[in-house]
Amino acid sequence: MTDLSGKMHKPETVCVFGTGDFGRSLGLRLLQSGYSVVYGSRAPKNSLLLPKGSKVMTHAAAACDAHVVFVAVQREHYRFLSSLASDLEGKVLVDVSNNLKRGLYPESNAEYLSRLVPGVTVVKAFNTISAWALQSGGLDANRQVLICGDCADAKQQVVDIAQSLGFTALDRGSLRAAAELEDLPLQLFPLWRLPLNIAICLTAFIFFYALTRDVIYERVTNGKDIAFRIMISLANKAFPIVSLVMLSLCYLPGALAGFLQLYNGTKYRRFPDWLDRWMLCRKQLGLLALAFGFLHVLYTLVIPIRYYVRYRINVYTISLVKDNNTYEFDNTAAWRYDSYYSMGILGFGLFVLLGITSLPSVSNSLNWREFCFVQSKLGYITLLLCTAHTFLYGWDRFLKPASYRWWMPPAYMLSLVVPCVVLILKLILITPCVDRNVTRIRQGWERQGKISANGRDTKTNHPLIA
Amino acid sequence: MTDLSGKMHKPETVCVFGTGDFGRSLGLRLLQSGYSVVYGSRAPKNSLLLPKGSKVMTHAAAACDAHVVFVAVQREHYRFLSSLASDLEGKVLVDVSNNLKRGLYPESNAEYLSRLVPGVTVVKAFNTISAWALQSGGLDANRQVLICGDCADAKQQVVDIAQSLGFTALDRGSLRAAAELEDLPLQLFPLWRLPLNIAICLTAFIFFYALTRDVIYERVTNGKDIAFRIMISLANKAFPIVSLVMLSLCYLPGALAGFLQLYNGTKYRRFPDWLDRWMLCRKQLGLLALAFGFLHVLYTLVIPIRYYVRYRINVYTISLVKDNNTYEFDNTAAWRYDSYYSMGILGFGLFVLLGITSLPSVSNSLNWREFCFVQSKLGYITLLLCTAHTFLYGWDRFLKPASYRWWMPPAYMLSLVVPCVVLILKLILITPCVDRNVTRIRQGWERQGKISANGRDTKTNHPLIA
Amino acid sequence: MTDLSGKMHKPETVCVFGTGDFGRSLGLRLLQSGYSVVYGSRAPKNSLLLPKGSKVMTHAAAACDAHVVFVAVQREHYRFLSSLASDLEGKVLVDVSNNLKRGLYPESNAEYLSRLVPGVTVVKAFNTISAWALQSGGLDANRQVLICGDCADAKQQVVDIAQSLGFTALDRGSLRAAAELEDLPLQLFPLWRLPLNIAICLTAFIFFYALTRDVIYERVTNGKDIAFRIMISLANKAFPIVSLVMLSLCYLPGALAGFLQLYNGTKYRRFPDWLDRWMLCRKQLGLLALAFGFLHVLYTLVIPIRYYVRYRINVYTISLVKDNNTYEFDNTAAWRYDSYYSMGILGFGLFVLLGITSLPSVSNSLNWREFCFVQSKLGYITLLLCTAHTFLYGWDRFLKPASYRWWMPPAYMLSLVVPCVVLILKLILITPCVDRNVTRIRQGWERQGKISANGRDTKTNHPLIA
Repeated sequence: MTDLSGKMHKPETVCVFGTGDFGRSLGLRLLQSGYSVVYGSRAPKNSLLLPKGSKVMTHAAAACDAHVVFVAVQREHYRFLSSLASDLEGKVLVDVSNNLKRGLYPESNAEYLSRLVPGVTVVKAFNTISAWALQSGGLDANRQVLICGDCADAKQQVVDIAQSLGFTALDRGSLRAAAELEDLPLQLFPLWRLPLNIAICLTAFIFFYALTRDVIYERVTNGKDIAFRIMISLANKAFPIVSLVMLSLCYLPGALAGFLQLYNGTKYRRFPDWLDRWMLCRKQLGLLALAFGFLHVLYTLVIPIRYYVRYRINVYTISLVKDNNTYEFDNTAAWRYDSYYSMGILGFGLFVLLGITSLPSVSNSLNWREFCFVQSKLGYITLLLCTAHTFLYGWDRFLKPASYRWWMPPAYMLSLVVPCVVLILKLILITPCVDRNVTRIRQGWERQGKISANGRDTKTNHPLIA
Repeated sequence: MTDLSGKMHKPETVCVFGTGDFGRSLGLRLLQSGYSVVYGSRAPKNSLLLPKGSKVMTHAAAACDAHVVFVAVQREHYRFLSSLASDLEGKVLVDVSNNLKRGLYPESNAEYLSRLVPGVTVVKAFNTISAWALQSGGLDANRQVLICGDCADAKQQVVDIAQSLGFTALDRGSLRAAAELEDLPLQLFPLWRLPLNIAICLTAFIFFYALTRDVIYERVTNGKDIAFRIMISLANKAFPIVSLVMLSLCYLPGALAGFLQLYNGTKYRRFPDWLDRWMLCRKQLGLLALAFGFLHVLYTLVIPIRYYVRYRINVYTISLVKDNNTYEFDNTAAWRYDSYYSMGILGFGLFVLLGITSLPSVSNSLNWREFCFVQSKLGYITLLLCTAHTFLYGWDRFLKPASYRWWMPPAYMLSLVVPCVVLILKLILITPCVDRNVTRIRQGWERQGKISANGRDTKTNHPLIA
Repeated sequence: MTDLSGKMHKPETVCVFGTGDFGRSLGLRLLQSGYSVVYGSRAPKNSLLLPKGSKVMTHAAAACDAHVVFVAVQREHYRFLSSLASDLEGKVLVDVSNNLKRGLYPESNAEYLSRLVPGVTVVKAFNTISAWALQSGGLDANRQVLICGDCADAKQQVVDIAQSLGFTALDRGSLRAAAELEDLPLQLFPLWRLPLNIAICLTAFIFFYALTRDVIYERVTNGKDIAFRIMISLANKAFPIVSLVMLSLCYLPGALAGFLQLYNGTKYRRFPDWLDRWMLCRKQLGLLALAFGFLHVLYTLVIPIRYYVRYRINVYTISLVKDNNTYEFDNTAAWRYDSYYSMGILGFGLFVLLGITSLPSVSNSLNWREFCFVQSKLGYITLLLCTAHTFLYGWDRFLKPASYRWWMPPAYMLSLVVPCVVLILKLILITPCVDRNVTRIRQGWERQGKISANGRDTKTNHPLIA
C-alpha cells in the first residue's frame, strides 16, 4: 500500500508563468487532467479570464508550491526571471516559447533561460503544440510533444505531464537540440521547397515554349491573334507535361540509386548529397505531379463546353454540309483516340490511388511490404500508362515536318525524354541477372575483393553482424 | 531488484462483470495484453463464447480476486451491484456504459453507480471505445480513452490498463465530467449542425428563387414548359452559389474578429457568443462549400452529354446552315469564357487542396505556421479565384434589362454580395497601417489609455506576464 | 527523493547487436531519446557509419554493460549467439527480425532464438517498424510497436523503451504470438484479396459478355468492325456495373445478418464462417466499388471529346440538314436523361463522402453513432441513388425485343439484380414491426422459449448479466 499512498499525492501542483493564450490553454488542460494549477503574474489581482479552479499569485509565491514551472512568456520578457533565481532554485523550468522569426537570436530561448537562471533545470517542451491544440483536447489531437533537456529526471517529469495531458512524448536529446525544436514551428514546408521550385520553373519554361511555338509563331507567320488560347489550351499543354516530367523525376533517383549500388557493390556507402536530398523529396515531387495531373484532367474535361471548340465544330459541320463532302469514318483514329483517353484515365486513376496511400493515416496503416508494392510497382505502372498516353497523343506527329515550327518540336516530345530514360533504366534493373545482384546488395551482401571506400573489412562473410 | 520484483507481480487479475459484446471484447484484449481475466456472471456455467483463458465465476467470487472491476452491464441492471457492496468494498469499479438516448436519466450512469455502491471508487472510462475497436487491436486503432473520476489513484490504475491495451488515456477530470463523457458517443455531428442547416436553407432559397425566375416566369410569360431544367440547370445554379456563399461565410468571421480586435484594442476580450460559435464551425462551413463545389464541377462537366444541350447545338447549327449566315468568331467571348473556366478550375484545385489539408492526419502533420498559411492565405486566394470566376460568368449581364425578370436579378448576382464584402474587409485588414495594428494586438499588445472592459491593469508594459 | 534519485540512473545502456540499416537507425533513435548505445560487432574496429555517440565493442563486451540487448541480425546468423550464452545470461534479448518470405522456417525467429540461448528472456518487438520509420522521428511516425514475450517484466522494459522512443506499445501476449507478429510485415493486403478477386472476375465476365453482345454480334450479324469500342464504350459498361454490384455486395451481408439474427432470435450465436469473412471485407468491397465508380465517371465525362462521338453527332446533324427533317424536342427524354445524370452525380458525391469517412484518420475521429449513420444510412441512400441511376438509364429498354441480342439481355439489366435484392431485404428490415425485433435483439434481448444453440440459460431475464 505504500506505493498506492505515494500515488495519492498525485494532484500535484504545476506552476504557469504567463497568462497569455498559451498559458491559459495549458492551465485549462492541466486542470482537466487533475493537476492543480497556480499562475504566476505581475499583477495577480488584475488577471481575469483564467480557467476556473486555478489560483493566481505573484511569481515568487506561485513558484514556491510547484516543482515544475512552465514559462509561457515571450523571450523578450525573460529578464525578470533572473530576480526570482532564489525562488526557482532546484525547480524544473519548462520553456514553451517560440520566436516570431528564425535566426533572431544567437542562442535558443531555452539555453538563454538556462544561462539566465543558473540554479534551475531547463527543459524545452510543448513549443510545437499550439494553444488551439491544447484546448481541443478531443479525439483528434494526437500530437507528439517534443522534449529536450540535459537532465533525464527533469525530462521524465515533463514526459509524465505530457502523457497525463494525452500527448505522446518524444525525447529529442540534450538542451542543445532546443534550437532545432524552436525552428520546427517556424518552418514553412521545408521539404516542399525544392519540388515546388522545380514545378514552377518547369511550368514557366513549358508555358513560354508553347507560347512561342503556338501563339507568337501564328501571329508572326499568319498574322492571326490566337492569344485567347493562353487561358486553356496553353495551360493544358503545360500542366500535363509538368505532371509527367515530375512523376518521372520522382522515380529517377530510385533507379539511379540502384545503379550506384550496383557500381559500388554495397549498400553501405552513402549516396552523394544531391541524390540523398532528391530521394527525400520524392513524395513531394509525386504529389505535385498529381496536382498538375488533376488540373490537366479538369482542363481536358472542360474542352467540349468551350466557346472556341463549339465554334470550330460548328464551322466544320457547316463546311461539310456546304461542300457536300462525304465524311469518312477513320477506324485507326477511333482506336487511337480511344486508347489515348483510356490510358490517361487508368493512369490518372492509379495516380489518385498513389496519392491516397501517401496520406499519413493511410500509409501508417500499411506495412513496409505493402507500402513498397503500392509506391514502387503501382507507381511504375502509373508512369508507364501516362507515358503511353503521351505517346498515343503524339503518335506520328514527330514525323511530320509541319510539327517543327521554327525548328522547335512540339512540347509533348520534350516531355517524353525523362520518362523514357526512367523506364529504360528500370527495365535494365528488372532484368533477371541485374535484379539478382541488386536484391542481394539490398539484403546486405557486399561485393568481395572490392575494397569498399568506407574502410569496412570486406573479408567478413556476415556483413550484418560485422 | 526490488523494483523489478515488484513488476513481476504484473500479470494482475482484472474482473469483468457482464458477458455481452463489450465484456467479451474487453476480456479478449486484456488477455492479449497479459492480464488474467475473471468474468462475473449470474449463471457462470452457462456463459459460453467467452475468450479462451478467461475464468467465469459468480460476481462475488470474481470480484474477490481483482482490484479493478469493469462493469460492462447496462444501467438498467445495475441494481444487483448494491447487494455486492461488501465484496466490492475498496475496489475500483470502471463504468464503461452508454445510454441509448441522451437525457434519459437525471444523473450520469457513473454517478448513479457511485451512489449505489458506496464503498467503491468509480472511474468512468472506455465508454467512447466500441467493442469493435477493442477487437481490431491492429495498427489503425489509435483511439484515446477518456477517463474521469474523483480519485487520482484509481484513475491512474485505469490509465495503466488503457496504456497496456495500446490506447492513449486522457484524464477529463472528476466524476462530474461523466455526464459529458456519456454524451460523447451519442452525439451526431454536433459541429456540423449549424453549417448543414445554413447549407440546406441557402440551397432551398436559391433553388426556389431560380425556379421562379427561370421556369415559372417562362411558363407564365411565354407558356413554355421547361420544367425539365430543374434536374440539372437549376441544381447547377444552386450548388455553385451555395458553395461560394459558404466559402465566404467561412472567412467572414475571421475578418469580423480582426475588426473587433482593432476596435477593442486588445485580444484579451472575449468575442460575442455568436461570433465564437461561428468561428468554431468554420472548418465545417468550408468542407460543405467544397462538397457543393464538387457537385457543381460534376454538373458542369456533364453539360455536353445532356440531351437538351445536344439538341440546342444541333438546332443552332441547322439554323445557321439554312439561313446561310456567316458565323463570326468573337475573340472577346473566347477570352472571357476561357478565363471563366480557367479561374474556376484553379479555384477548385486550390479548394481541393484546402480540403485535403483539413483531413485530421494531414493537418496534424503541419505545424501552426503551415496550417495558417494554407487555410488563410491559400483560402483567400481560393475565394478570390472563385469570386472572379463568378464575375466572369456574369460579365455585363447585370447591365442588360432582360436579366431582370419580374424585377429579380439573376441568382449569381446575389451570390456575389457576401464574397465581395469579405474580400473588401480583408483588403482593409491587409493594408500596411491596419495590418501593423492587428499584428501587434495578436502578439499580445494592448492599446494604452483605453480602460479595457475586463478590468486588467492596462498600465503594464508586459501584457504577457501580467 | 529516493524515487527521483532512482530515476537519475536513467541514461541506461542499451546494446544493439548488428550494424545494418535497422541497427543503425535504432541506435540513432535510442541516442536521441537519451539512452547510451553500445553496438556489438564481430569487427568493432571496422564498423563505421554508426551514429555519433555510440560505442562499438565485441559482442561479449557490449552485452556486459546492458540489460536489454537488441538482436538486429538476420536469423541465418543467429548461431553465433549460442556461444555468448554465458555473457547473455539473465539479459533480455529483443528479437526485431523479419524473414524474407512466409513459412521459411517451422518456428518463429524469436522462439528459435529463445531455444538457442537458454538463459535469456526473449521478447519479440519492433519488427513491424521499418528502419525508415525509426529515422523519421518526426511528427507523422505514430506507429504502434507490437510486443510479445513470456515474461511480463522483460516486456515492460521493452515497452518503456518503445514509449521513450515515441511509439505506443501494444502487448500481444506470449512468445507463441511471435510467429503471427513475424507474418505481419510480410502480408500483402490480406483483407483486399477476396474483394479484388471478386472485382477482377466480375469485370472480366461483364467485359466478355458485353464484347459478345456488342462487338461480336455486330460483326457476325452486320459484318461491321466496331472493335475500337473496346477501349472506352465497353470499359464504361464494365466499370459502372462492377461498381454497382460491389456496392450492393457490401451491404448484402449486413442485411443477411439481420435476417439470421431474427431467425436465431439472439445475437449471441456466431454467424457462419463465410458470412463472417464477408462482413470483415465490407470496407474493401466498398472502396473498390468507389474506385470503379470513379473510373466510370471519368470514362463518361470523356465521351464528348471522343472522335467517334463527334463523328456520329456530325453525321447526324448533316443528315438532318440534308433530309430537311424537323427535329422535335422530346420533353420526356430531356427529363429522363437529366434525372439520370443527376442521380448519378448525387450518388457519386455521396459515395466519395463514404470513401472519405473510411480514411483511418477520419473514421477515428467519428464516434460509433456517427460512423454507423454515415456508413449505414448514407450508404443505403447511395445505393438507392445509384440503382435509380441505372434504372433511368435502362428505362423501357428491357421491353424492346431489339435489346435482346442472341437472347442476351443488356448487361445493365444483370447489374440490377443484386442491388434490388439488397434494397428489398433492407426495406423488409426497416418496416416497423421487423425493425423493433431486430433492434431488441441487437441490444441483447433473446427470444424466450427457443433453446439457443450455444447452451445458454435462456430463462434468465437479464441476458447482459448472465
